[in-house]
Amino acid sequence: MNKNAKEAIVKAAISLFNSNGYSGTSIRDIASLANVNPAAIAYHFKNKTGLLEYCFMHFFEQYISKIEDAYAFIDRGAKECLKRIAADLLFYQSEHIQLTSFVYREMSIESQVVREIMSTYSLKEKYYFQKIFERGFEWNEFRPHSIPYLIIQLKGLLMMPFMNTRYMREVLYVFPNEPFFQQKYLKEIHLWIDKTLCSDVPIKKGAVIK
Amino acid sequence: MNKNAKEAIVKAAISLFNSNGYSGTSIRDIASLANVNPAAIAYHFKNKTGLLEYCFMHFFEQYISKIEDAYAFIDRGAKECLKRIAADLLFYQSEHIQLTSFVYREMSIESQVVREIMSTYSLKEKYYFQKIFERGFEWNEFRPHSIPYLIIQLKGLLMMPFMNTRYMREVLYVFPNEPFFQQKYLKEIHLWIDKTLCSDVPIKKGAVIK
Repeated sequence: MNKNAKEAIVKAAISLFNSNGYSGTSIRDIASLANVNPAAIAYHFKNKTGLLEYCFMHFFEQYISKIEDAYAFIDRGAKECLKRIAADLLFYQSEHIQLTSFVYREMSIESQVVREIMSTYSLKEKYYFQKIFERGFEWNEFRPHSIPYLIIQLKGLLMMPFMNTRYMREVLYVFPNEPFFQQKYLKEIHLWIDKTLCSDVPIKKGAVIK
Repeated sequence: MNKNAKEAIVKAAISLFNSNGYSGTSIRDIASLANVNPAAIAYHFKNKTGLLEYCFMHFFEQYISKIEDAYAFIDRGAKECLKRIAADLLFYQSEHIQLTSFVYREMSIESQVVREIMSTYSLKEKYYFQKIFERGFEWNEFRPHSIPYLIIQLKGLLMMPFMNTRYMREVLYVFPNEPFFQQKYLKEIHLWIDKTLCSDVPIKKGAVIK
């Protein structure tokens, strides 16, 4: 019963934070949608900030573990590893579309919680991407390039479908929560990896041309 | 004097909406930062929604006119035209970084104003991009491809640096308001156009290979 209440609160919070924004949502709104007493929210999460923190952690813990799991296979090649991470992150975001949308939006608003999340998870994410790109340069899989500028592009491609899902649905008629989208868009990201990251790789001195 | 008050209000609103979010900002905060009486805001913009609407229009009027101006030169080639639009939009966003960041964030929150903006400006934007891609296919400049999926990628690349400017500065050490960034990142977008849009263009039957 208690666990169900907690789950209902999180589900309601994600839905309301997503459609009305974090600041535009009250504890009362969440309690009402979750069909619980506002005191239950205080009991589980202390306050609205506690609930926001829980959502951020919930999102980023899983997000980073997707990257870590795929990074374990780096020895099969940097390109393979990056393609797998792109797939895992895309599917994860697509399956948690409301959470993803609101987390990305709220991450751009100044707050203590955001600063803490950024100084742990965003740095971890950067660490892994940097490792993969460095391996890719070293193993002659990727064309040498500025790592921060590669991260911007990769994250731009991965985040865009979830930044404004109404725009996606109502203007472009694309539905980022559907398996059809996942498969089709993944091909686009893999194409970016093949075409802008892996093409025109210079031949290293001493390399054996097969 | 009156004009100065209006400008001061808009400047303060953009700054506060950007750092605290639209919902997290009050008329009182704006009046205080702009050093005007709250009644002056009511006089110029009616209410907070009026001010938000003004900011959206201000952003998108200029945004669309950049696209329209560049589209006038479509006969010089679809690739040239798209590269020019990418440059103009990137520079425009970089020069209005706070406005850009907050407009993109607020566009993802459900409201009447957002619906109206989307049904005018987002459709106009889509119309021009569609035209350019169609011309590019027709003139054999671009590899045939799904237009909505191209728009997602192009917009993802163009929007990403402005979605979370603190992340850009504090995690990646990239400063999206600086001319150095503009020049370097524009090359990345042009590379995307060259590599994923313009490579492997199939040879049309009857075409003369030079």
